[in-house]
Amino acid sequence: MKIIGEKINGTRKKVAAAIAERDATFIRDLARRQAENGADWLDVNAGTHPDREGDDLLWLIELVQEETDVPLCLDSANPRALESAIGKVKETPMVNSISGEPDRLNNILPLVAEHGCGVIALAMDGKKIPDSAGDRMAVVRRIFEATREAGVADDRVYVDPLVMTLATNIESANVTLDAIRAVRAEFPEAHVCLGLSNVSFGLPARALVNRTFLVLATAAGMDTAIVDPGDARLRATLLATEMVLGRDRHCLNFTRAYRQGLLAPGDGPPDKK
Amino acid sequence: MKIIGEKINGTRKKVAAAIAERDATFIRDLARRQAENGADWLDVNAGTHPDREGDDLLWLIELVQEETDVPLCLDSANPRALESAIGKVKETPMVNSISGEPDRLNNILPLVAEHGCGVIALAMDGKKIPDSAGDRMAVVRRIFEATREAGVADDRVYVDPLVMTLATNIESANVTLDAIRAVRAEFPEAHVCLGLSNVSFGLPARALVNRTFLVLATAAGMDTAIVDPGDARLRATLLATEMVLGRDRHCLNFTRAYRQGLLAPGDGPPDKK
Repeated sequence: MKIIGEKINGTRKKVAAAIAERDATFIRDLARRQAENGADWLDVNAGTHPDREGDDLLWLIELVQEETDVPLCLDSANPRALESAIGKVKETPMVNSISGEPDRLNNILPLVAEHGCGVIALAMDGKKIPDSAGDRMAVVRRIFEATREAGVADDRVYVDPLVMTLATNIESANVTLDAIRAVRAEFPEAHVCLGLSNVSFGLPARALVNRTFLVLATAAGMDTAIVDPGDARLRATLLATEMVLGRDRHCLNFTRAYRQGLLAPGDGPPDKK
Repeated sequence: MKIIGEKINGTRKKVAAAIAERDATFIRDLARRQAENGADWLDVNAGTHPDREGDDLLWLIELVQEETDVPLCLDSANPRALESAIGKVKETPMVNSISGEPDRLNNILPLVAEHGCGVIALAMDGKKIPDSAGDRMAVVRRIFEATREAGVADDRVYVDPLVMTLATNIESANVTLDAIRAVRAEFPEAHVCLGLSNVSFGLPARALVNRTFLVLATAAGMDTAIVDPGDARLRATLLATEMVLGRDRHCLNFTRAYRQGLLAPGDGPPDKK
């Protein structure tokens, strides 16, 4: 499983404040801790203020790159902000995101193609997320027509089949799991990437619900997760999942993490019986 | 998910000592706590001492039935001990277990048929558990020939496809998950029952590994688990799994358990971001 660190996100209150106040220490700290916890990319989102997003994004990128070499996931719907950001990054970034919307495909996909980036592709084409796995796949197919046309190889595409909360629709996770399996079957070279936490919006014990969904999404074929890499219990669940699914030869990653104390304390051995 | 409480098991040291010393308080306590925690059956195993098993089992059954009305799962390979035990139980019990071994089929299956019991059927026919899901299914098919021949309806059969530890074979859990799906597909009326904990034998952080396997086995079609009903984190994972899989309408069971404080403390909401 590859991890995209989700913490540097200007739609979060504390991060928005840090950006507005140019609080470099706060941002550096988020970057360093996610890198130390094994993030494969760091998502960088400067918020959605149209007048400031471009400058804010450049400020974030510069800071984060001073702190770590982990590649970035440039998170913006604004093609101009993305274009200037791509010019500033040291490592080829991921772009977050395109969707089936013609505007995004027309304006963002050429940047992805030109710079050889990976790209997150949301399985939606308007404001509303399609209800069924079949309708999401219809969008996904149109996106792959466009990415292939643009010369972006399938293995640079990270499909996000999207998940909505179980609180309003108990079939939400099943729809997403079906979509994950369908993407895997139809586009075997492509990746499946998911921000998990929407699944538990409005529910209690969200971390538990998210971890449980993580296990099932991983089994279904998700290979990239947008999460907080500092969440030790989530990480422990991920290591256990990969081992149970036979993807950890001789259980080496799991047992090494245990010896290094990387599994959360509560995940230690049960009481003797 | 139905739960078979596993705690009253004479192959465990403390329970063996309690049986030997006729420590009624200890046994009553195990029975009461499992019942309070929602067990659907209580496994009762008197150990394997050939001279004493029959008497020990009767002593256990009497005690447990004084304490609770939860039906029993009579856990013995000894047909004579089972026969006298079945005569003493108030509610129709589950019998644990038959397997593909001709001796067990010939001696235990008639008791099951005669008394209308449910029965756990182990997917093995000798001392050794077959390595592959296909070989386990070959045994399962022979068992169903025998149960049908004996007039035991498929929905009284709880197939245990068995799991071995990941520590010696990283494909262990996958083999079991494949077998669960195969049983579900071929014998849709039958149940799938599993003792989870072997999966983590010899590994660290066993409780975490067991919970992770529980999520995947439930998704694959396990509908009965042999576990400690007092393991709050396991129970919380189970509730979350059923909700994520769309089996908890309006999330009522999950949210009710949360309000009642039944989810483990560590499974509460994550820190505010």
